[in-house]
Amino acid sequence: MTTEQRETLAEQLRTGRAPEAPATNVDELRAGFAALMSTFPVPSGIRTISTDLGGRPAVLVEPVADPRPGILLYFHGGSFALGSPETAMGTTAQLVLRTGIPAISLDYRLAPEHPFPAAIEDGVAAYRALLRSGTPSSAIAFAGDSAGGGLSVTSSIAARDAGLPVPAAIVAFSPGLDHTRSGRSMSTKDGVDPFFTPEGMRRTGELYLAGQDAAQPLLAPAVHADLRGLPPMLLQVGTNELLLDDSVRLADRARDAGVDVILDVTAGVPHVFQAYVGILDEAEEALDRAALFLRQRIRPVAPDASH
Amino acid sequence: MTTEQRETLAEQLRTGRAPEAPATNVDELRAGFAALMSTFPVPSGIRTISTDLGGRPAVLVEPVADPRPGILLYFHGGSFALGSPETAMGTTAQLVLRTGIPAISLDYRLAPEHPFPAAIEDGVAAYRALLRSGTPSSAIAFAGDSAGGGLSVTSSIAARDAGLPVPAAIVAFSPGLDHTRSGRSMSTKDGVDPFFTPEGMRRTGELYLAGQDAAQPLLAPAVHADLRGLPPMLLQVGTNELLLDDSVRLADRARDAGVDVILDVTAGVPHVFQAYVGILDEAEEALDRAALFLRQRIRPVAPDASH
Repeated sequence: MTTEQRETLAEQLRTGRAPEAPATNVDELRAGFAALMSTFPVPSGIRTISTDLGGRPAVLVEPVADPRPGILLYFHGGSFALGSPETAMGTTAQLVLRTGIPAISLDYRLAPEHPFPAAIEDGVAAYRALLRSGTPSSAIAFAGDSAGGGLSVTSSIAARDAGLPVPAAIVAFSPGLDHTRSGRSMSTKDGVDPFFTPEGMRRTGELYLAGQDAAQPLLAPAVHADLRGLPPMLLQVGTNELLLDDSVRLADRARDAGVDVILDVTAGVPHVFQAYVGILDEAEEALDRAALFLRQRIRPVAPDASH
Repeated sequence: MTTEQRETLAEQLRTGRAPEAPATNVDELRAGFAALMSTFPVPSGIRTISTDLGGRPAVLVEPVADPRPGILLYFHGGSFALGSPETAMGTTAQLVLRTGIPAISLDYRLAPEHPFPAAIEDGVAAYRALLRSGTPSSAIAFAGDSAGGGLSVTSSIAARDAGLPVPAAIVAFSPGLDHTRSGRSMSTKDGVDPFFTPEGMRRTGELYLAGQDAAQPLLAPAVHADLRGLPPMLLQVGTNELLLDDSVRLADRARDAGVDVILDVTAGVPHVFQAYVGILDEAEEALDRAALFLRQRIRPVAPDASH
């Protein structure tokens, strides 16, 4: 009974909720996030290789058996200030296993040391490096969770604006797509979302903003970006999320811009519920839908001539 | 290049467009629709058996090889006045082949002889017959295209209101979900939609309405229905459709009602584009996504005790 699973998880997250983090230094926040994320198991059947891509460290995640052609450029979550390829390895590995397609997870620069647009610049540089290595854009998809879901979208926009071909697809799990925080769910899901409060989100968001105006396309793509020419995108989000309407509004605007877009909403589940493989059937089902979407979109052909 | 496929099909549909049907009798309209739909091939690998269900004729569509448990209750399209299980057989058979799950396609009563709510009554009666035969609701999904997509939704609502358990899932291809015709796409897609005009849609809609108020839940579920308790639904729609916003608004309201809902939008394709297998790659890809969704949702268990 997956309804029971959803309710059990929601109750566990409610009662287990950490007190609001006191004002602390970012190193402590990062250590706490890494400790939390290390509780999510990484499945067997993959191997990881430390590498670099476009001037940043990265981790190549390959299936041990039967790899398919193509590459997923993965962006981890962590509010643009926390996290690393390791903290998202469970979800990254699940995508690799279920698609058969290798991923390269980028260790992009983090705020507050490197505020907006450093992470996006790293995303575009990584993508450019993949293209230069001879991988055609038709064989590359961007994927990510939370802030990394946002980066999968904004890096695509920035790549398009730089004159690069867009990747073959975007998959975003609970993406953060609006630093103006103007979504209706910012209030309607306050108290429902077990992870985030509007105030906490505002505080971590300030690290990335560093005083810059949030009302611009790459900081609020769900509200301000021109989405024309973006590749097919799959947005998966739960209804127990302050960020729900980030996905809803991006889907609305993508549709109006002539972009293929799947808005895949699961009720009663929290932020990046795909991480709860083994606890929520919905997690595995959502990952399988994402994997089918990626296999449909990634079609390696002859390399692009000009990048 | 699927962009080329989409544009080629759009151009063919534009130039091949039939003149507005003159005022004619419904038998001529039905014969014309049957002739049109007979041009869509039915794939091999299925067998059909004429039967009846809940007091109406029906066609059982079985995969020749390796059937999986469960049943799809299929509702054909045809503006509630035209069509039959045969006219939708291509798409029905594709769903059967791609899921491995048999379908039973219902020959529900048509307007104008049988206006609203006759078709919905037939849908609920068919569903009740399946339940009474021992098939649990968890093993039954409703699916349909166009008007039949609308019936997959409204029959679920009517079943819920009758105290029946809801089916395991709903799959609707370009469903008609608003006889008030209040969607924004009714004007923004006028001239873009190669099949429908607002005036033509109004005229055929009147056959089903028969003077009844369109502003009621089972005639305009995208606007007026209480959607709480409905099963997970997948809505697939193209952007070249007057009916686009029927799906968009139903998805919005389903999400607010706590229903799992996937809104799967393909740009630049027409009404029930899933029918164009062999012409549009998007057709097969959309059918494969629908098949995965159905296989995830249909989970045969012990029969319901009480129906």
